[in-house]
Amino acid sequence: MLAFNYARLPVADLPCSFLFLTLTESRAEKLCSQFRRMSFISIPENSDFPLENLPTVSFLQQIRIGVAIGEHILDLNAVAHLFNGPELKNSQHVLKESTLNSFMGLGPKAWTETRKTLQDLLSTGNKTLEDDIDLRKNALVLQSEATMHLPAKIGDYTDFYSSIIHASNVGEMFRGKDNALMPNWKYLPVGYHGRSSSIVISGTPVRRPVGQTRPNDAEPPIFDKCKLLDFELETAFFVGKSNPLGTPVSVEEADQHIFGMVLMNDWSARDIQKWEYVPLGPFLAKNFGTTISPWVVTMEALEPFRYLLTGGSEKEAVVSRSNFKYMYWTMKQQLVHHTITGCNLQPGDLLGSGTISGPTTDAFGSMLELSWRGTRPVELGDGITRKFILDEDEVIIRGHCERDGLRIGFGKCTGKVLPAITL
Amino acid sequence: MLAFNYARLPVADLPCSFLFLTLTESRAEKLCSQFRRMSFISIPENSDFPLENLPTVSFLQQIRIGVAIGEHILDLNAVAHLFNGPELKNSQHVLKESTLNSFMGLGPKAWTETRKTLQDLLSTGNKTLEDDIDLRKNALVLQSEATMHLPAKIGDYTDFYSSIIHASNVGEMFRGKDNALMPNWKYLPVGYHGRSSSIVISGTPVRRPVGQTRPNDAEPPIFDKCKLLDFELETAFFVGKSNPLGTPVSVEEADQHIFGMVLMNDWSARDIQKWEYVPLGPFLAKNFGTTISPWVVTMEALEPFRYLLTGGSEKEAVVSRSNFKYMYWTMKQQLVHHTITGCNLQPGDLLGSGTISGPTTDAFGSMLELSWRGTRPVELGDGITRKFILDEDEVIIRGHCERDGLRIGFGKCTGKVLPAITL
Repeated sequence: MLAFNYARLPVADLPCSFLFLTLTESRAEKLCSQFRRMSFISIPENSDFPLENLPTVSFLQQIRIGVAIGEHILDLNAVAHLFNGPELKNSQHVLKESTLNSFMGLGPKAWTETRKTLQDLLSTGNKTLEDDIDLRKNALVLQSEATMHLPAKIGDYTDFYSSIIHASNVGEMFRGKDNALMPNWKYLPVGYHGRSSSIVISGTPVRRPVGQTRPNDAEPPIFDKCKLLDFELETAFFVGKSNPLGTPVSVEEADQHIFGMVLMNDWSARDIQKWEYVPLGPFLAKNFGTTISPWVVTMEALEPFRYLLTGGSEKEAVVSRSNFKYMYWTMKQQLVHHTITGCNLQPGDLLGSGTISGPTTDAFGSMLELSWRGTRPVELGDGITRKFILDEDEVIIRGHCERDGLRIGFGKCTGKVLPAITL
Repeated sequence: MLAFNYARLPVADLPCSFLFLTLTESRAEKLCSQFRRMSFISIPENSDFPLENLPTVSFLQQIRIGVAIGEHILDLNAVAHLFNGPELKNSQHVLKESTLNSFMGLGPKAWTETRKTLQDLLSTGNKTLEDDIDLRKNALVLQSEATMHLPAKIGDYTDFYSSIIHASNVGEMFRGKDNALMPNWKYLPVGYHGRSSSIVISGTPVRRPVGQTRPNDAEPPIFDKCKLLDFELETAFFVGKSNPLGTPVSVEEADQHIFGMVLMNDWSARDIQKWEYVPLGPFLAKNFGTTISPWVVTMEALEPFRYLLTGGSEKEAVVSRSNFKYMYWTMKQQLVHHTITGCNLQPGDLLGSGTISGPTTDAFGSMLELSWRGTRPVELGDGITRKFILDEDEVIIRGHCERDGLRIGFGKCTGKVLPAITL
């Protein structure tokens, strides 16, 4: 019996909010307050990375995995021997690897135990790390001195299309208001397979692609640089435990398969996409680069929140403030749907939310929507406007959750656009 | 300057045949005759694997890579020390790995040198292997005693849609004869990203998927097992050398990036596909399993040929005999197109041809076409018919090239359908 049998649910019964809103409010309040311990590591005010966050990361120092705490990274390789709980004591080696895949594959009990050990180790009053000068020197690295890498070897990458506001906006532009949403949209989380090899870490420049477009239907297509370069404001989650090929994941089991979240910019070449995407979907319009933030914020750190996302551009003019609460399909539904035919997900696979658009024009998650297909220039201040993204523009996505004074952040997801290759 | 600038070519100039037909006939004749050396290993008549083939494979004996010769596999780990040419002598370690990725990444000079060394080693009159009983015992494994594995760790998998006959057939069924081909189809090789984790080796059973379909547009969708399970007769090629992100591959360089070919069955759930694929393309309808043959036939072995593909089903009733020469877009064009926006291909990535359909009804490459959307039952003999694939049916794809008595084969690509999970 499959627990996630969406086709038999009336549409009105579909849970339309997000994973960690399934908590009752009182449990969320409790979660917000219970961990208010101090760390002996100084944490600036409004840091994305308090003791309650500890997002995982992969960074260079002979590539290591670690967790962020304030302005530092704790190198898990250097403290692996301190993880002696029942789940980790025979799996310390996963903390010494250069990607998070093996750790992700251990499942929620191991994740929880690791988090608890880390919060203990980093709390004021715990002497193991605080008083061991050599170990501290060895284990704590300033983020400003580290080079970040992709957190995991991403085997497969899938992107969804789960914001009803984004899907309605795009549909209205291309098919008119009456046919904005496709007939299948509310019945299943529409998604497609993407390209994993071109996923890059925040800060990596992205080159404007060249390709085939057909600006004028009366003429043959042309081959030129992309003129309608866009971002898409998204989150993505990493898969934790794998499921064997042929065995769908049930709703009850889904939590074991969702490790944590990052911010994502799904760069899109709108003119290439428009011409190429029929009938098999986006291909070259998306595979020239997809940027993710380095910090994987675990689901446990996110439990008490609904959260906010903010996008900026060059000179840090804010072009959009959106919120994940506007998503129609949840991560849990996306994951379960993905496996319903038996598709095997693996630790480190990345599943994108799709563009996150809010209900007002300043909360749209792409230039396509913000400029309404280029018909309304977006004001950046000082008389500067944009319809789509220009060369040397930098797109910055930030995100955080906040509640009762506790802030859990995602860091940044940034990328600058380099000019196209010379034709 | 990009050499592959297809949008500026008039359509009539597009090369419509396939990679190894770019050879002149006299060169092909020469290639057919020049290697007619005998091997000291007995090779049955009509074997897919003569001395001129030597397709690479990954097999179990502590997973090793090897090459097929007649009914044997030569374990490359056991003979790695004999590769002392300028390309391989410092890279012998790649022959000791359990996947072909590193070897694929070396490029054509190394592939050619390896092939030459292997043909020398296996030729009658060369005493190195023939007379060394211990080495022979160690290095030669009967195929019937080996378990095959995926030849490479497939990072990304892409599938194209490059048979004009298949695309026209499907288009005619769903949009009528006048709108059969989409406007973009002849201007670029349409393709989409697929799921790499569910690619399985020939012989692996495939479970009938369950999923959401909408058999009646006047009713809501239903959730049930797939009723229109299909195969797609394809080939696929493995990527050899990688290209860096942001750097397209030119036509001149393309050969360095195409390592070799396999047979592929792109299992398809037609009812799921029909409902889910708008607007982002096939997703769950394809990601429950894709079967490839274990033997990677190198492009060098294929140089002198045009080749034939044959599909069979349960009881080995032949349901289709098609030919790769009917493809409209070449592998070279597919590869170059894939990189035009800068997408980075990596050694071991797999690129599928798309369904290979010939011009006559008995050469169509899928049940969708063979039964014309289920309207014409396909006769299998003994009064047995099929419209789509039933549980316990086994689909067998074979392929070989033949010319002047030389036969280069692909082995088999098989898979049996298991019943769906219980709902």
